[in-house]
Amino acid sequence: MTHARKMLDTYPGSAAMDAAVLVECIEACFDCAQSCSACADACLGEEEVSHLRRCITMCLNCSEVCAATGRIVSRQTDFEPTMARAALQACAEACRLCAEECEHHAREMNMEHCRVCAEACRRCERACGDALSAVGA
Amino acid sequence: MTHARKMLDTYPGSAAMDAAVLVECIEACFDCAQSCSACADACLGEEEVSHLRRCITMCLNCSEVCAATGRIVSRQTDFEPTMARAALQACAEACRLCAEECEHHAREMNMEHCRVCAEACRRCERACGDALSAVGA
Amino acid sequence: MTHARKMLDTYPGSAAMDAAVLVECIEACFDCAQSCSACADACLGEEEVSHLRRCITMCLNCSEVCAATGRIVSRQTDFEPTMARAALQACAEACRLCAEECEHHAREMNMEHCRVCAEACRRCERACGDALSAVGA
Amino acid sequence: MTHARKMLDTYPGSAAMDAAVLVECIEACFDCAQSCSACADACLGEEEVSHLRRCITMCLNCSEVCAATGRIVSRQTDFEPTMARAALQACAEACRLCAEECEHHAREMNMEHCRVCAEACRRCERACGDALSAVGA
Repeated sequence: MTHARKMLDTYPGSAAMDAAVLVECIEACFDCAQSCSACADACLGEEEVSHLRRCITMCLNCSEVCAATGRIVSRQTDFEPTMARAALQACAEACRLCAEECEHHAREMNMEHCRVCAEACRRCERACGDALSAVGA
Repeated sequence: MTHARKMLDTYPGSAAMDAAVLVECIEACFDCAQSCSACADACLGEEEVSHLRRCITMCLNCSEVCAATGRIVSRQTDFEPTMARAALQACAEACRLCAEECEHHAREMNMEHCRVCAEACRRCERACGDALSAVGA
Repeated sequence: MTHARKMLDTYPGSAAMDAAVLVECIEACFDCAQSCSACADACLGEEEVSHLRRCITMCLNCSEVCAATGRIVSRQTDFEPTMARAALQACAEACRLCAEECEHHAREMNMEHCRVCAEACRRCERACGDALSAVGA
Repeated sequence: MTHARKMLDTYPGSAAMDAAVLVECIEACFDCAQSCSACADACLGEEEVSHLRRCITMCLNCSEVCAATGRIVSRQTDFEPTMARAALQACAEACRLCAEECEHHAREMNMEHCRVCAEACRRCERACGDALSAVGA
């Protein structure tokens, strides 16, 4: 349960894009910021941590981009499509890279947290893509 | 829908506290980080923005503390209670202050986004309090 | 005075790019994240806050992107050029947009904080551009 | 070189505390946010990464708190001492814990990046303490 939809519905003005697309993008960004932080931490807790360095860096970086993008798309006042596009493109790319890395470890090393994290990344990659279409990429 | 619970369940070790308390705290922190960003933006979009300066600053600050705390409690590897406590106390306090400010504007100025944001703040204040009890404050 | 250079010099491996370019990029990103937060706050403190809405949103968004990018380029372990590129491009674009907005208010409304913030944005835009060249954009 | 001092000097109002104390606190927070991110990354790049798990978590957490606090003290509009105090206390504590951890690895494992990072943490701990005194802790 998040308050993202209710926050958007009580915004004093019109949203920058279709509300369902926007809310999904906001929620996916914050969720992925959390999952990627948690996956970096779970990798750090694994015995084979030395094999997971790339995954840790990727997750930490993806988490940063998602958190920044989640806040940027949360802002409707004087929404600037060029700014949103720059952030959404970076976020979709970060999520794609991180998903690939996590899927690799889920497959090869049976890392369940990587499998879950990849799900969150793919959802966010999709949501950013949909928001990009809505904003006119 | 968030992946917080699944991320915790796939962590390779034991969680720092009761899983339900922890997941609620993580989700409440990220949700409040989003709501506060959105409320600052909604206040900025109001005609009476000059009356809402304090609310905007409060929301921006609360959003920072929640985002930091959400990530800190997401990390289980070498969880340090003293660090968690410091963050959770600051977060509970930030949420309390922000909730009071938002409740004031909800009441006096009929600001619906402030009412929704106050809900998110109170939920997060409570969740941080429960996590503090669990961690042994 | 920052510790960025010393942190890079003590990294146990080789940096992803020329150290001077990298340190300037790191420092410019963190400095711009701070300046943009401060400029949004200074705009909020102005009597004519209602004319500065776009500048506030732009500064808040630019601050997010700079903070994320500053951390991403700070990470050398398994540095992934594609990830760095995505962040650096978004950051250079955010800084360009924010600089234009701030320069406008510096010129038209004599906003001194906007003039200073635009300086920080232009420095960061340049530093990200140089880092992009170094990483092979 | 940062723009923190110039941003504060162009703020349209009076600062919440002595300018020198405030600027040192702002700069120390952003510097420590960067150093701690970089130290977590440097630890991750070490061969003995499995011995450095606690240091990585500590650094990542400290970086979050410093970044949040740096932005909070950057905001002068409707500065709320109670909010500032909560953040500054958490930050001083996070820096103290992280400095102890890093000093330990600097001493026992000759980790030079930990020695540099501990310097940044101790500076930030001190700067937050001075700001707390100025704000009336």
